[in-house]
Amino acid sequence: MRGTVLYGPHDVRFEDREDPRIEKPTDAIIRIAATCVCGSDLWPYRGIQKIAQPTPMGHEYCGVVADVGSAVKTVKPGQFVIGSFCISDNTCPSCRNGYQSGCQNLEFMSRAQAPMLRVPLADGTLVATPEMPSDQLIPSLLAVSDVFGTGWFAADAANVKPGATAVVVGDGAVGLLGVLSAKLMGAERVIAMSRHEKRQKLAKEFGATDIVTERGDEGIARIKELTNGIGADSVLECVGTEESMMQAIQSTRPGGSIGYVGVPHGMKLDVWPVFFNLVHLHGGPAPVRRYLPDLIKLVWDRKAEPGKVFDLVLPLEGVAEGYRAMDERRAIKTLLRP
Amino acid sequence: MRGTVLYGPHDVRFEDREDPRIEKPTDAIIRIAATCVCGSDLWPYRGIQKIAQPTPMGHEYCGVVADVGSAVKTVKPGQFVIGSFCISDNTCPSCRNGYQSGCQNLEFMSRAQAPMLRVPLADGTLVATPEMPSDQLIPSLLAVSDVFGTGWFAADAANVKPGATAVVVGDGAVGLLGVLSAKLMGAERVIAMSRHEKRQKLAKEFGATDIVTERGDEGIARIKELTNGIGADSVLECVGTEESMMQAIQSTRPGGSIGYVGVPHGMKLDVWPVFFNLVHLHGGPAPVRRYLPDLIKLVWDRKAEPGKVFDLVLPLEGVAEGYRAMDERRAIKTLLRP
Repeated sequence: MRGTVLYGPHDVRFEDREDPRIEKPTDAIIRIAATCVCGSDLWPYRGIQKIAQPTPMGHEYCGVVADVGSAVKTVKPGQFVIGSFCISDNTCPSCRNGYQSGCQNLEFMSRAQAPMLRVPLADGTLVATPEMPSDQLIPSLLAVSDVFGTGWFAADAANVKPGATAVVVGDGAVGLLGVLSAKLMGAERVIAMSRHEKRQKLAKEFGATDIVTERGDEGIARIKELTNGIGADSVLECVGTEESMMQAIQSTRPGGSIGYVGVPHGMKLDVWPVFFNLVHLHGGPAPVRRYLPDLIKLVWDRKAEPGKVFDLVLPLEGVAEGYRAMDERRAIKTLLRP
Repeated sequence: MRGTVLYGPHDVRFEDREDPRIEKPTDAIIRIAATCVCGSDLWPYRGIQKIAQPTPMGHEYCGVVADVGSAVKTVKPGQFVIGSFCISDNTCPSCRNGYQSGCQNLEFMSRAQAPMLRVPLADGTLVATPEMPSDQLIPSLLAVSDVFGTGWFAADAANVKPGATAVVVGDGAVGLLGVLSAKLMGAERVIAMSRHEKRQKLAKEFGATDIVTERGDEGIARIKELTNGIGADSVLECVGTEESMMQAIQSTRPGGSIGYVGVPHGMKLDVWPVFFNLVHLHGGPAPVRRYLPDLIKLVWDRKAEPGKVFDLVLPLEGVAEGYRAMDERRAIKTLLRP
């Protein structure tokens, strides 16, 4: 088969690689129905996160089980499955606490931008759909694997409750699905911070009640104006820079909560304002496995259509253009089909 | 009267000052029954926190109301009262959310190391005891004003639940009362990190089930050994340095919570391990006013004796020796009596 390999900054290739095969009895092999490019893939693509050698890419996936190892019990060939980008056993103490992204046997998926994929710890990582989905559902089911699961975690970590006011910092695909998640969790007011027309429009489709285009101190002042002078109950930080984090901290009311899911590359946080603003801070790699059953059901029952974030669909061999379009912010998120 | 004034590093004086008087209709004047030296007073005492001019000191206090302004409704002359170190109106949106230390009219108390004290926003700051306390109760009632209230907040912010395992980083008075608080909240296991015999003993009296003397990587390894290999549910960070915060972060299980109450002077936190360890972080100046009624009741009903942290009692005019003894760690905490 051919698969996606990053060679260095802006150098993505779709090239011959070995077909994956069962290596351990807990593995499954799946035939990818759709995969995609993640905002976090742009870190190494842009050279901000160094890579030591050519690196197979991709960690969002769904598809049909082709083969399973002898120890796999919960999924079987022919089933349509979605897996978390975090590979977990789902049995260790951290998994039982609902933090499969802190599993004692954690691995991060890679190699998913390809037609076939080996998934280790299949029982702990994959969840099957009730039956074979229609083609139209596939983008939304794919989204559950990471981008929707991560937006959902941002809202959950930000403690969004019915009636609450939530602010979303970041209008990438995760931020937009943070808007959707906050809305689905019952937030009365969802304020999206965006200055990008197309993304504002999608934020509104997902349930944003207000759009704030200002940034920095002006953005914070605008949020205060909209929130009783004190800031929001819940703020979803979906970028991962010091600037966006400070924006989030200053936009949260005393005692309010920030859910942060942007990978904080080199972020050094001045704790003084976090302390005196009395905010709750929680985030990390999303424990998507915990949410998979519920989020699959939301999609299956047509209560959520997270697949709307995919505004560019390419065949897998067009993956390099998929990265470019996202890097240049021409596309929100690229879906790739084998 | 005479009161305590810090002139510069290691230069505390007890000198003539004007008697406080009602300045606003919301003020009360109280006759101090006892006051004390706080760990946070040592920051400017040691010159780490600069002061621009001679600064009146003291923010922990209890005593008898001598006078009230015309607008004060909930306390009256002759009542014994305890107040938070944070002055709050207790009516603004932040106060109603339980974050009086983020009050829209917040002031920090000072000048309490003196025989008489003006308390602004008396209705929002002070709580009276059911009746005049015995002399023996006074140290514990004084402790509620900050040190016990802050230890309690550390445990609350660390989300201590019945049956949980809690770790306390820091064996100062706040840390020791964090041990007591975690125990009172039902923690099954309370691990105190201390290498100081006298403080270990008090930690055990307050309910510590384990003492860990190791620090740094060895301390973390020891905590992991004691906690199923994954870390504690709740960690109370009661120091306020980068080192102690990293100790706390590495000692918490994925999804666990850190309550931090040590003022983070100049702390720059590397967010990477906070993110990948998936911890909850919450802290700040304790909203003591929220806890005052419950903590006063615990003391009044003899269910808690936080006053045990005072191991040095001096007359107010001996305040300079009170600072010295704490600075040199000869005393855990100094109580001062007019």
